Formats: sequence, C-alpha cells, structure tokens
Amino acid sequence: MSTRAGAAPVAIVMGSRSDWPTLKSAAAMLDALDVAYEARVVSAHRTPDRLVSFAKGAQAAGVKVIIAGAGGAAHLPGMVASMTSLPVLGVPVQSRALSGLDSLLSIVQMPGGVPVGTLAIGEAGAKNAGLMAASILALSDAELMARLEAWRAGQTASVAESVED
Amino acid sequence: MSTRAGAAPVAIVMGSRSDWPTLKSAAAMLDALDVAYEARVVSAHRTPDRLVSFAKGAQAAGVKVIIAGAGGAAHLPGMVASMTSLPVLGVPVQSRALSGLDSLLSIVQMPGGVPVGTLAIGEAGAKNAGLMAASILALSDAELMARLEAWRAGQTASVAESVED
Amino acid sequence: MSTRAGAAPVAIVMGSRSDWPTLKSAAAMLDALDVAYEARVVSAHRTPDRLVSFAKGAQAAGVKVIIAGAGGAAHLPGMVASMTSLPVLGVPVQSRALSGLDSLLSIVQMPGGVPVGTLAIGEAGAKNAGLMAASILALSDAELMARLEAWRAGQTASVAESVED
Amino acid sequence: MSTRAGAAPVAIVMGSRSDWPTLKSAAAMLDALDVAYEARVVSAHRTPDRLVSFAKGAQAAGVKVIIAGAGGAAHLPGMVASMTSLPVLGVPVQSRALSGLDSLLSIVQMPGGVPVGTLAIGEAGAKNAGLMAASILALSDAELMARLEAWRAGQTASVAESVED
Amino acid sequence: MSTRAGAAPVAIVMGSRSDWPTLKSAAAMLDALDVAYEARVVSAHRTPDRLVSFAKGAQAAGVKVIIAGAGGAAHLPGMVASMTSLPVLGVPVQSRALSGLDSLLSIVQMPGGVPVGTLAIGEAGAKNAGLMAASILALSDAELMARLEAWRAGQTASVAESVED
Amino acid sequence: MSTRAGAAPVAIVMGSRSDWPTLKSAAAMLDALDVAYEARVVSAHRTPDRLVSFAKGAQAAGVKVIIAGAGGAAHLPGMVASMTSLPVLGVPVQSRALSGLDSLLSIVQMPGGVPVGTLAIGEAGAKNAGLMAASILALSDAELMARLEAWRAGQTASVAESVED
Amino acid sequence: MSTRAGAAPVAIVMGSRSDWPTLKSAAAMLDALDVAYEARVVSAHRTPDRLVSFAKGAQAAGVKVIIAGAGGAAHLPGMVASMTSLPVLGVPVQSRALSGLDSLLSIVQMPGGVPVGTLAIGEAGAKNAGLMAASILALSDAELMARLEAWRAGQTASVAESVED
Amino acid sequence: MSTRAGAAPVAIVMGSRSDWPTLKSAAAMLDALDVAYEARVVSAHRTPDRLVSFAKGAQAAGVKVIIAGAGGAAHLPGMVASMTSLPVLGVPVQSRALSGLDSLLSIVQMPGGVPVGTLAIGEAGAKNAGLMAASILALSDAELMARLEAWRAGQTASVAESVED
Repeated sequence: MSTRAGAAPVAIVMGSRSDWPTLKSAAAMLDALDVAYEARVVSAHRTPDRLVSFAKGAQAAGVKVIIAGAGGAAHLPGMVASMTSLPVLGVPVQSRALSGLDSLLSIVQMPGGVPVGTLAIGEAGAKNAGLMAASILALSDAELMARLEAWRAGQTASVAESVED
Repeated sequence: MSTRAGAAPVAIVMGSRSDWPTLKSAAAMLDALDVAYEARVVSAHRTPDRLVSFAKGAQAAGVKVIIAGAGGAAHLPGMVASMTSLPVLGVPVQSRALSGLDSLLSIVQMPGGVPVGTLAIGEAGAKNAGLMAASILALSDAELMARLEAWRAGQTASVAESVED
Repeated sequence: MSTRAGAAPVAIVMGSRSDWPTLKSAAAMLDALDVAYEARVVSAHRTPDRLVSFAKGAQAAGVKVIIAGAGGAAHLPGMVASMTSLPVLGVPVQSRALSGLDSLLSIVQMPGGVPVGTLAIGEAGAKNAGLMAASILALSDAELMARLEAWRAGQTASVAESVED
Repeated sequence: MSTRAGAAPVAIVMGSRSDWPTLKSAAAMLDALDVAYEARVVSAHRTPDRLVSFAKGAQAAGVKVIIAGAGGAAHLPGMVASMTSLPVLGVPVQSRALSGLDSLLSIVQMPGGVPVGTLAIGEAGAKNAGLMAASILALSDAELMARLEAWRAGQTASVAESVED
Repeated sequence: MSTRAGAAPVAIVMGSRSDWPTLKSAAAMLDALDVAYEARVVSAHRTPDRLVSFAKGAQAAGVKVIIAGAGGAAHLPGMVASMTSLPVLGVPVQSRALSGLDSLLSIVQMPGGVPVGTLAIGEAGAKNAGLMAASILALSDAELMARLEAWRAGQTASVAESVED
Repeated sequence: MSTRAGAAPVAIVMGSRSDWPTLKSAAAMLDALDVAYEARVVSAHRTPDRLVSFAKGAQAAGVKVIIAGAGGAAHLPGMVASMTSLPVLGVPVQSRALSGLDSLLSIVQMPGGVPVGTLAIGEAGAKNAGLMAASILALSDAELMARLEAWRAGQTASVAESVED
Repeated sequence: MSTRAGAAPVAIVMGSRSDWPTLKSAAAMLDALDVAYEARVVSAHRTPDRLVSFAKGAQAAGVKVIIAGAGGAAHLPGMVASMTSLPVLGVPVQSRALSGLDSLLSIVQMPGGVPVGTLAIGEAGAKNAGLMAASILALSDAELMARLEAWRAGQTASVAESVED
Repeated sequence: MSTRAGAAPVAIVMGSRSDWPTLKSAAAMLDALDVAYEARVVSAHRTPDRLVSFAKGAQAAGVKVIIAGAGGAAHLPGMVASMTSLPVLGVPVQSRALSGLDSLLSIVQMPGGVPVGTLAIGEAGAKNAGLMAASILALSDAELMARLEAWRAGQTASVAESVED
C-alpha cells in the first residue's frame, strides 16, 4: 500500500500508473523521513473531474503540500496549482521520444500567477520533491526538521572521498 | 467585436488577452470564409472554472470545432480536449524566452486518448487553425467547401513566379 | 488486411512500410470505434506521382479525413495538404537520430494557407489521429459520436486511482 | 530600499545586480501579499564566501524560504540548497545567448538529495517564486492564507472574457 | 531582373517571395562567377502543380543544378529532389519562431534515396549554394573552374590579418 | 578492399575508422551505380598533414567529388572544402551523447565562401551522398545518368502500397 | 589506487563516484604521460564543506591544474573555479535524461570573471582534460612537453588510412 | 593597436574581423593583467595556409597559450589544437541564426586526443579566456599570480550586496 497510516499532509498524484516507478522515489523519501502521504493516479486528461475534485478538495482534506508528476504534455501539476493555494511541486517524468524535455517545459514554464516548484526530470526529481515537501512541513515541525537535518548530515557523511571501493 | 452574428460553429479560446494578436489571424481566416465564430479569453490556470464550464458546455451550445491558443506551459488546448469529444485545434503562441518551443511541446505531446490537432507556432498556425476548422465544417457544408476551394485556388493564383515586383 | 469493408471515410497514408508499426495505432483506434479506413504506403519522396494522384483523388474517392505519418524530413502530411481541401492530420514518426524532433518540426511548422493538424510523436500521436478523425466524422454522425463518447467514458472509468495492482 | 520593515521570513538572493529587474517581480508579489523579505546580491562565483555565510546562516537568522535567481551557468540556487534545509526556490534569469535554457537546466537538474523548486524563466518565474514562498508561509499563517486566496480570487476575477478592450 | 541572358544552367527556386532577400545571395554569387541562372517562386504548398511541372521539366529545359530555398516546414528542396535526378542544393531560410532550425531539419534529414545537399541557414547558405553550383558546373567547364579558383584566391587574399582597420 | 578498379572520380574520406560503418553506405550506393571511388581515413584533428595533402591534391589526382564524413566537432568536411574548389559533400555521423546534432551543426553551418553540401545524419545521409555524387558526375556522363535514373525508377517501383507483407 | 606516488600537480575531482568511469579516462591519459594526480569525490551539493576546503586549499597543497567532472546541474567545476586562481578544466558527464546537454551548459556558460575550460561530454572530454592538463604543465617542464609531443606523434602515426582491417 | 609591446606569450586568433568585438574582451582582460598578447585574423576556412603556418609556428614563436574564437561551424580552435601541443582555449562567438549553439558544439565536442578548453558563448567567454590564459601563465610567474589574485579579490570586493544604487 502506498498510503501510510494517519493524517497525510502530503499528496502524491501522477498522470498515469506508469509514472509510479518514478514517483515512488518521492514516496520512499517521505517514508525515510517519517512523513505521511497518500499516492493516487489523477489524470488531467483522462479524468478531468477527478482532477478538479482532488485539487479543490485537497486543502480541506488536510493536505499541506502536493507532489504532482506527469510526462509529455504534462498538465497535471499546473492544473492542480490552478485550483489550490497549497504549494505544488512538479516532477517531470522522462518521456519516450523527447526524454522528458517536453515534460519539463510543460511543467516549469507556468505563467505568472500560478506557481509550480519544478524538480529535475525523473527519479532524482521525485526524490527531491519528497525532500522539498519535508523541508516545507519542517518549517512548523521541529522534529521533522531534526530528522531532515539528520538525513542531510547522513547523506554528506556517506560520500566517500575515494573514487573506488 | 470579435463575435460574428448568427450561430457560431467555431469557438476560439485563448489563455490571455495578450494571445489575441496571434489568434485574430484565425478569426480573420474564418471571416474570409464566412464562418461564424466566437472568441473569448479562457485561462486554464487563472480561470479554471471558466475552462471547465466552457469545455463541458461547448457541444451543447452548438460549437462544432474549438480553436485553442496559449503560450509557455500551454495547457488550455489539452485541458479543453479532456472535457469534450469535439475536435480541438491547438495554436502555440510564441513565448518570450523559448520562442514557442515550450508552447508547441506543451500542446502537441498529448498522451494517447486525448487528441489536439496542433498547428504551427504563431500567426501562421492561427491562420491555419481557421482554415482547418473550415475544412472540417465543409465536410457537411458544400457551400463552405466551395468557398474554401475558391480561397485555396485564389491563394495559388496569387503566387507570382517573379521574385521581384 | 488493413482495410475494413465498406466505404472508407478515413485514409491512412505513411511514407514507408517501416512507419506501419506506429501508424497501426491509428488503425486500431478506428477499428475500436467502427470507422472504416484504408491504409497504404505513399512516399512523398520515392513515389511522388502516387502522392499527387492520392492527394488529388482522395476527396472524389469519398475520403473525408486523411491521416498522414512520416519521419525525418517528413513531407508527406504537408504535401498531401497542399493538394486537398480535406482535413489532414499529421503523425510524426520517431526518427533514429533525432527522436522525432525533426519529424515533428517538418510536419507542424507549415506556412499560413496549408494546415496540417499535428499529433504527438509516435504511437500516442497515431492513436490520437484515429480519435481525432473520429471526432471530425462524428460531427455529422450521431451514432459515431455516441460510440466516441462511450469510448472516452470507458477510458475515464479505466483509470484506477490506486498506483499499484 | 528593497528591504521591508520587520522580521523577514523570505530572503531573495541573486547572482548579480543585473538580475534585479527580473527578481523584483518576486519582491513586488511579496509586497502585494504583505510578506516581509530581504533582497541582496550573493554571487556564487564572485563572492563564494558570502554565499557560504548567507546559506549557512539563513535559518538561524529567521529566514523561512529562500528565493534564488541567476542566469547562464546558474549555480546560486543549488549551492544555497546544498547548505541549508530550508526550502529553496530557483528563478532562471533569461540569458543573452541561450535565452535562459542554460539557466533553467543549471537550476532544475539537481541530483537527488538537494532540491531546488524551480520556476519559469524570467519575470513570470520570479513572480511565481514570490507566490510560492507565500503559499509555503501561509501553511502556518491563516491570515496570509486569506490574503493569498484573496489575491488569487482577484486574479481570476480580473480575467475578462472579451478579447478586446 | 533576376534572370540573366542566355541558357541558364542553374535554377533558383524559393517557397515565397519573402525568401528572395536570402536567396539573392545565391544569385549574386552566380553573377560574380558569370554563371547564368533563372530565379522564380515555386511554393511546394501553395503551388504544388507548379512544383511538379518545374521539377519534372528542369532537366529537359537544360537546367544542370537546382538551388531551392524555403523556411519553416521547408518541403520544396526535398520535393524537387523527389522528381529529378539533377543535383539539388537546399537553403534553409531563417524562420521567425525557431530561427531556421525547423527549416534546416526539414531540408537536411531526407530519407535514403532522395538527396538534398544542404547549406547553412540564411544568407551564408545561399551564397554557398551559388558557389557549390558553380563548383559542380566547373567540373566540365575549365573556364568556370578558373573563375571559381580566382574568386577563392581573391577571397583568401582579402582576409587581412589585422583585427582593426 | 574499399577501392574499385580504374580511375576514381569520388573520394570518400572519414575522420575515423569507426565512421566506416556509416560511410560504407555511400560506397555501396556508388558500387550499385558503377561509380569508382576510393575510401580512406583522414582525421582533421589527428592527421592534419594528411588532411592538407589530401585536400590540396585531390583535384590533380583526378577526383571530381569528395564525400567527407565525421562526428562530434566534425571539422573534416569544412576543412577539406577550405582547400579545394571541388564539390564537397558532408555526412554527419551519429555521435554518442548528442545523436549527431553536434556533427550536423559542425558541418552544415559553414560561413559564406566555403560550401559543404550536407546530407542527413547517419546511414541515410551516407547513401544520399553517394547518390548526389553520382548525380553530379552524371551531368557529363549520359550513361551514368541513365543508370541513376534506372536506379531511381527501381526505387519507386519497389515501394509497395500495401502496409503489410 | 587512483593516486600515483610523488607530488601531484593535477587534482581530479568529481561530483559522485558514479562519475569515475568517465573521469578515469583523464587519469589514464595522465598515467600515459607520467603526470602525477590525485583523484577524489567532492560533491558540490552533498559535501559543500569538502568543496570549500578542497578548492581553497588546492594551490597551497601544490596542485597546479584541477580537473572537475560532474553531470546534470553540474556545479562542481564552476564552484571550484570561484575559489581558486588555478586553471580549472571541466568535464561534462553524460546525464541520463538529457545526454549531458544539461551538464555541458551548466559547466561552460560561466559568467565573465570565473573561467572553466570545458571539454567534450563524456570520456572523450575526460581524456582531453588529461591532455590539456599535461599541455599546461609542459609549459614549464620540457621533458613533459617531449612526452606529450611523442604521444601526439604516436597518435598521428596510429591512424591508418585503410578503412578496414 | 591590439598588439602590446614586448614578447607575446598569448596569441588571440579569430575566424573573422567581425569576431573582434567579442574577442577584444579577452584582450582587455589581458591588458588589465599586464599580459602581452598578439591578436590577428586567421580564418580556418578562407585562409587555411595561414592557419597551418600560425598553428605549427606558434610554439617556436614563443607563444605559450592560444585563444581562438569563431562562430557557426567554428573549426578554428580545433584545427589549431590539431597542430600544436600548446594549450588552446576556444571562444564560441554568438552566431546569427542559432545564437552560438552551433559555435559551442563545433568547438567543445572535440574527439579524444585533441583538446580545446572551451569558454562560454560570447563576451563572457572571451573575458574568461583571457583570465584562464593568465592563470596558466601564472603557474610559472609569481608576479602574474599576484596580479591575478588581486584582480580576483577586487572583483569580489566590487560586488555590492545592495540590489539598487
């Protein structure tokens, strides 16, 4: 199950189940930081009503940060952002023909007035969306900030200088 | 006024009033072919409710073909297409930083299941969206087909061989 | 056989037999919507006479919508459009070196006066060309519109929320 | 003066004074939402010590969200993010030769472990960085959330349907 | 007048009169080398019959080398090449939105079997098309080869070492 | 042996032996048209003296047309062209990281005064370089023109209409 | 062990151990020229303190030339260059989604005032970084210049003219 | 005069006099650091003999570092590097159609074995080429190293924190 127990301050949505192998890096990061989330498929193009109801209802449902991932003409993050005042983080999924350049530009080039904080193409971006969601939540959760800083310190410590094993 | 009298089988929508200098080439083409249209601003990002109500209501309102233009992370054409079975034509508006490459990819790279017939970046694309809307309507309107063919013949005749005046 | 029985309102043409693995997604979509089509190879570059005779004869032969797919310096869709007033839908086939970016730009960047409604690079684009052809024909075929809307509803219903099986 | 009175939860940093015409759109947005900020030039390349001292000291100084803008090989946002657990928003400034594509890729393509939430190239991105900073702060500031929602509602209301004056 | 007296071994064709400011650099080069040419507008898209009749008739009309220039979805050079065994040189005209990258890819990425020798985007490419046409004709015209070599020697001699006047 | 018996009017040069799998498509085309050629490795960067001696000596050695292929920062075609008045055809070899876009731009974007007729990236371009060399030689060799036209006719005849076997 | 005995005038740093398969081509080149080097992982983003201490301490430690390789938003070379007056050579590592175009632009597009001499994407670039470091050191080491020239001569001699074995 | 008195350890060469407005930023930087240089036009394509004689003679003439700038299919830096063991720094000049992306790829994507240390497109790159040449020469010139470090310190000191005057 991709949903952790308890209230879920982070919602992870994606345009297709085929995006889950990418987006689960966001979920794994949140798991590592003990942040609850809920993950579901919300296709801007194939399920526009679900999109509207998710985006308009997220804040009332207790969501604090939304992570939205999609590929190609990736409209999900921007359309979610058009219907909520919550911070929305966008993850461009690597597309087949254009390697995610289309996904990236479709997500990041939003007009003034409706922001999407965009991360890198693919798994690195998904992992970072999880980290950034945590950094946002940690602003009002000192324990989470401590866990985040510990994770960051651990990351730094894990980088061996030696180039070989 | 950008709306002609009578029933309007073509709807022209655009993400911002600043797209009108581009999209009015579509309107001019429809005028030249005596096809009624209605033009309005529908911002996917700033007026998502207007988007939903326009896209869901278009068919019942008698619209046959929708022309949608937008720039940057251009979500309007695809989002309209997600909520109607009418043919949707997309016009990428030339953007400031990336010259419309972002607009083009955001419009054309739709996932399987929700089509947008995309035209060229800028005014040429808008003009062609008008022409293509006419060619679609002309399939069941012999008089329009005659006007369209006359226009095409006139275009051909107007191409002088000489490279100078 | 790629040709269905009865009059064929849709013609699918492609620049090479090697484009068929892509374009058959258009055919499959039309099959699913019970729309007749005829598919054939028409190379703009290697069979220019076939191109002229196909494009000029399509309307008289009862074709209503043309789907044209090609890769690289993809001239087929635009050249067909130069010789017919029928709506032409272009499918950029993914090319080897440049992943279809060349195909896309060669098809979509048509000058004002000769439109090609361009879909996404590759199979998604081909599937959508089939859907868009159907949406055009459905404007004067209420039964087809019903089948199209049913297909769209089925598509929406098939999108499970759960990210995992 | 670009610094508002009172505690400043938002820091705006930029690689060069020549980035200020872009970044002041972030400042204007924060002004409009009555969010205090401090703006200064911190060049990753020309003032690396200032970079280190700013990035390491921001959290203790009471900063909650950092907006960092730069152009070309834009390292400022990512390097700030490497030295703080605060959320960092990156604004790619439009560059002369490559129109900000270099700025965008240098900011958004961060490796897993160090996130930068990236906005659009240029002024739209700067304005959205201001909005996103506000949406983050509003998670624990109901009055700011109300101002933000009022601003968003005003934006929606200001989009006239008419394409002309 | 863009046509020199006498038999014209070089034909310069272009998709639109607006391409002449670019293509006249080819004409000027041929003038400088005393090579006769004829220049005319042949639009692949707007005058397809003229295209066919020009391309099929060029060899019988005494043309030896064809220079074809076009912009955007530039199909003229490739379509001419599809209907003649004469060498065809392609000149990508700089386009408005994409600066001629679309023109270049539409011309150069021809499939195996139908070659177009492509020159640089814009005036430099047009000038070089003139030079290359001359170098082809010079293979069987020793006087032209001498003029060409003299022009090349003059070009070399004209490159002053000094960076300033 | 890549050299056919008799005088060789075509020289095929390439920057590295690793380019031969691409360039041999040019050789195969020339074999099919019974045009003699000589193929050799001439690295602009690793063997600059060989480059100079080849390029300056080609015309005297009886070469009529030069086909030059290279990848990455592909300087061979342009440098050969700088030292001969013979027509030079450039073949961009597909490179590892950038798929030949670097090769293409390095070859085609020559300044005015030194032309390289550039073909498509990879094997299609190499085959077309062979064809174009033949079309140039055929201008003064009626038998070769007949073989070329026969080959072209055979190519046209070989394009079956059926999309499947 | 990637460190040769004796004082090491060249330091090779890279953003991640996963860059070593690329960067070891630099090491191999230096080994071949008998130039001592030390190689280590210094992540700009994950180990910023190590970055500062490495870059500020390099000159005092006897380093003469620094080779820095990284991928994606590759900040290591530029950040090292911001903290030393030694010559810094940058190697863009091929990235997964964008094939190293992001790495290249992030490294090469440095603002005026802080130079990074950038080599090609991937192994060729790493090898050339080794060569260029040697050419810099050879300016004051006649024996190294002799070894470098011998290596270059050997390279030239090894390029066989024959295209096949 | 672009040539300073005394022995000139730096040679600045460029493909055309029109590159001088860019390259003089390199000269100005060297002037500021009191490093002698000589600047001249050496066109790889229009003056290949001058190229060979310059590149082969540079080392004997006392040159230590070569700065080479060119635009479009920019072959000058790589061809110079093919004929010398001196360090060669490449400056991509901003081109008209493709804004210097062609220049950049033509210079930086050199094959393994012949390095060019490439700087940014345009004036920033030229300035940095001057700085990098100085940093190379400073390795064996303590006074120059002192001047370089003073210049760098001055640059750092000149970056005011305030975003406005």
